[in-house]
Amino acid sequence: MKKVDILVIGGSAAGLVSAMTSKSKNPDKSVMLVRKEEKVMIPCGIPYIYGSLGNSDDNILPDGGLLQLGVEIKVDTVLKIQKELKVCKMQSGDEVEYDKLIIATGSMPVKPAWLKGGELKNVFTIPKDKVYLDELLVQMKAFKNVVVVGAGFIGVEVSDEINKMGKNVSLIEIQPNILGLAFDKEIAIEAEEKLRSRGVNIFTGTGFEEIIGTDKVSSIKLSNGDVKEADAVILSMGYRPNVSLAKEAGLLINEKGFINIDEYMRTSEADIFAVGDCASKRDFATGKISTIMLASTACAEARVAGLNLYNLSTFRSFSGTIGIYSTNIGETSYGVAGLTEETAIREGFKVVTGSFTGIDRHPGKLNNAHKQMVKLIVSKDSGKILGGEVIGGNSVGELINVIGFIIQAGYTLTDLLVAQIGTQPMLTASPAAYPLIKAAEVILKKTN
Amino acid sequence: MKKVDILVIGGSAAGLVSAMTSKSKNPDKSVMLVRKEEKVMIPCGIPYIYGSLGNSDDNILPDGGLLQLGVEIKVDTVLKIQKELKVCKMQSGDEVEYDKLIIATGSMPVKPAWLKGGELKNVFTIPKDKVYLDELLVQMKAFKNVVVVGAGFIGVEVSDEINKMGKNVSLIEIQPNILGLAFDKEIAIEAEEKLRSRGVNIFTGTGFEEIIGTDKVSSIKLSNGDVKEADAVILSMGYRPNVSLAKEAGLLINEKGFINIDEYMRTSEADIFAVGDCASKRDFATGKISTIMLASTACAEARVAGLNLYNLSTFRSFSGTIGIYSTNIGETSYGVAGLTEETAIREGFKVVTGSFTGIDRHPGKLNNAHKQMVKLIVSKDSGKILGGEVIGGNSVGELINVIGFIIQAGYTLTDLLVAQIGTQPMLTASPAAYPLIKAAEVILKKTN
Repeated sequence: MKKVDILVIGGSAAGLVSAMTSKSKNPDKSVMLVRKEEKVMIPCGIPYIYGSLGNSDDNILPDGGLLQLGVEIKVDTVLKIQKELKVCKMQSGDEVEYDKLIIATGSMPVKPAWLKGGELKNVFTIPKDKVYLDELLVQMKAFKNVVVVGAGFIGVEVSDEINKMGKNVSLIEIQPNILGLAFDKEIAIEAEEKLRSRGVNIFTGTGFEEIIGTDKVSSIKLSNGDVKEADAVILSMGYRPNVSLAKEAGLLINEKGFINIDEYMRTSEADIFAVGDCASKRDFATGKISTIMLASTACAEARVAGLNLYNLSTFRSFSGTIGIYSTNIGETSYGVAGLTEETAIREGFKVVTGSFTGIDRHPGKLNNAHKQMVKLIVSKDSGKILGGEVIGGNSVGELINVIGFIIQAGYTLTDLLVAQIGTQPMLTASPAAYPLIKAAEVILKKTN
Repeated sequence: MKKVDILVIGGSAAGLVSAMTSKSKNPDKSVMLVRKEEKVMIPCGIPYIYGSLGNSDDNILPDGGLLQLGVEIKVDTVLKIQKELKVCKMQSGDEVEYDKLIIATGSMPVKPAWLKGGELKNVFTIPKDKVYLDELLVQMKAFKNVVVVGAGFIGVEVSDEINKMGKNVSLIEIQPNILGLAFDKEIAIEAEEKLRSRGVNIFTGTGFEEIIGTDKVSSIKLSNGDVKEADAVILSMGYRPNVSLAKEAGLLINEKGFINIDEYMRTSEADIFAVGDCASKRDFATGKISTIMLASTACAEARVAGLNLYNLSTFRSFSGTIGIYSTNIGETSYGVAGLTEETAIREGFKVVTGSFTGIDRHPGKLNNAHKQMVKLIVSKDSGKILGGEVIGGNSVGELINVIGFIIQAGYTLTDLLVAQIGTQPMLTASPAAYPLIKAAEVILKKTN
């Protein structure tokens, strides 16, 4: 029987990064990554297969990094984890013995049990499966009317991309606004207006009752009674953790269906770790179970596992999931880190917020300048920065990381007000009107 | 005699921001800002007047924020600070009594005493003076060959901009590379190659002996013996603090010529603060006197002054200048925060560094993707992140701020490795190959 020191199950972001970090931290240990897929999709790149890339071959997570480090890749499916023997049985018949096991089995799209018409042809989800996604791309070319159900990040990005292909896209969302669970209302509304202005038909505040058709989809009936013609329906109604292997092996699963882990990604079983979408998460502010699934969070967890496999390398490595998101609609981008105002209030914080709208170049007359809005959410009692939201141009992706670090580092409003930033006319807002700092000043004025 | 609670001298970034923060923090106090200029230049935007903007009217620091808050603007020149009386005498004859005074008199371009030919027509510097800069812009149109002396940020940006105007530009730098004092050699070399590829003639490792001409400039003689034809010479050889008012008032000046201040921007005189280019700075790593002049640093100091005028609001507000810079040459940008490898070693740190080159989109096949390189400098003994350097696309401006916050928050390598970041295909590198984190992993591998 083959024996390795470290075995990783799953080839997406969390599996890849935990294998690489394990090997970097423990160069003398043998590391094997076993995955189902010959070629792995870059998870967050999937929506862009449809409009911007036009194919999935340009969206492959490369193996080079793994191979260069000396990680062995095995394309196979783990059927069973025999935790007493520390052995994984594979579909090929192979058995692999491990010393440390990292489970990174990810998540699968939700197709709700109550769904009527879900069995019809041309009802799709967005799994991380190249073969399935390629088939969807081929078929998509023949569709005229496409209905996307669920306006979280994936639903919004897929709608925008299919719209780029020239389809007539309708996006259905049961919440009052698209992205309404991720952003505060005023930001969600701006994103919604932007997506609508690009030609996507948006219907919010309504679920759907039934997908209608004989053999294949012909329309969808919304809960508000409207019926929308549809050649295809794409369900982006969330993902659920893929924990069947872990469950069968007897690992502890939490009440939301995720594999239970501690601060170091250790499961209830010695020498078995879990990372990424399949692993339990706690909110950084409340410690409550979080259902966030983000490739970037998964990668951070994967690094924590890799660093703490053989001995604990930091105290309280992963003290809760912050949630740092961004998305892009046309030339405008939207980002959020930590708690929104709405979530903070719901959780019981007394908050004070401040927003400032400036320009992401200085002077603003420079080419490619874009409006930049920053909103900060601060605890009235402790002065700590709890969250931030941003609307702007392409720099939003890193600006929201600035805010993410400010939250993770435990900055107070005053810490932020005296912090040093760098600015450059072609790249950032003005140092005298940097929206992140100006939003903090708005709060300062309110609290004096 | 007019009496105000808070008087600010100087209308550039530091003056503007200290006036605004003072008023935000102390809404009941009267604040007056006195400045020489009718219209104030955005300091970092000055190079862009020449090529990208084509005029200086699009590069004005707006007064709206000041006026909206209720700050009084007085266009006048302070001739004398009478600190015993707490009165400033102005050129107009007016006298203004203050309770708190903030000096933000900035800096002036260096024109070295040894300079031969400096009195000739068409020898210019780059002061923050709209009238002067407008005159240069008008005259520039007639020039064919322009020589820029000094390849710091201003010299590089001015060269690139004048090159955009179609001039034949030669850039002279006594260091072995352009931007060689700001970046480690390998990054400086890349920037140099980029600027050269855009058509700027670059001559490094040579100073100059003499500007030659009768009445007006005709050529410049380099220390290596070469003679370059020149219709104009632009000196960008650094700036010196403008401290004459402070000196005459008897305030303590440090050995590098800056107004001495403490952690809260207080000068040697009670109730007088100094901020920005004219104020002394200490390096964040060594506590040594620093000669950094940056609008963004100036603004941070201005906020510290504003927050601490009447009572101290934070403990050790400004614990040293980090230095966070970025610049842009064509589609490529360069950023640096904290110590370079060279500086860290020179100061006595044992360092370990790591670099990683990736792509700032994921997948990399997406439009507008740009190479992204991150180098990190870490103390071998403490594990603390001392500095970082970045080459990339437009997101460099905020990515270097991410690194700036990591340094300011005192992150160690392990803290960074387990930190959470946010990623998005159209906006950032991949979560599995985010160069900032990958560079940290390179260091991890080296130190295991």
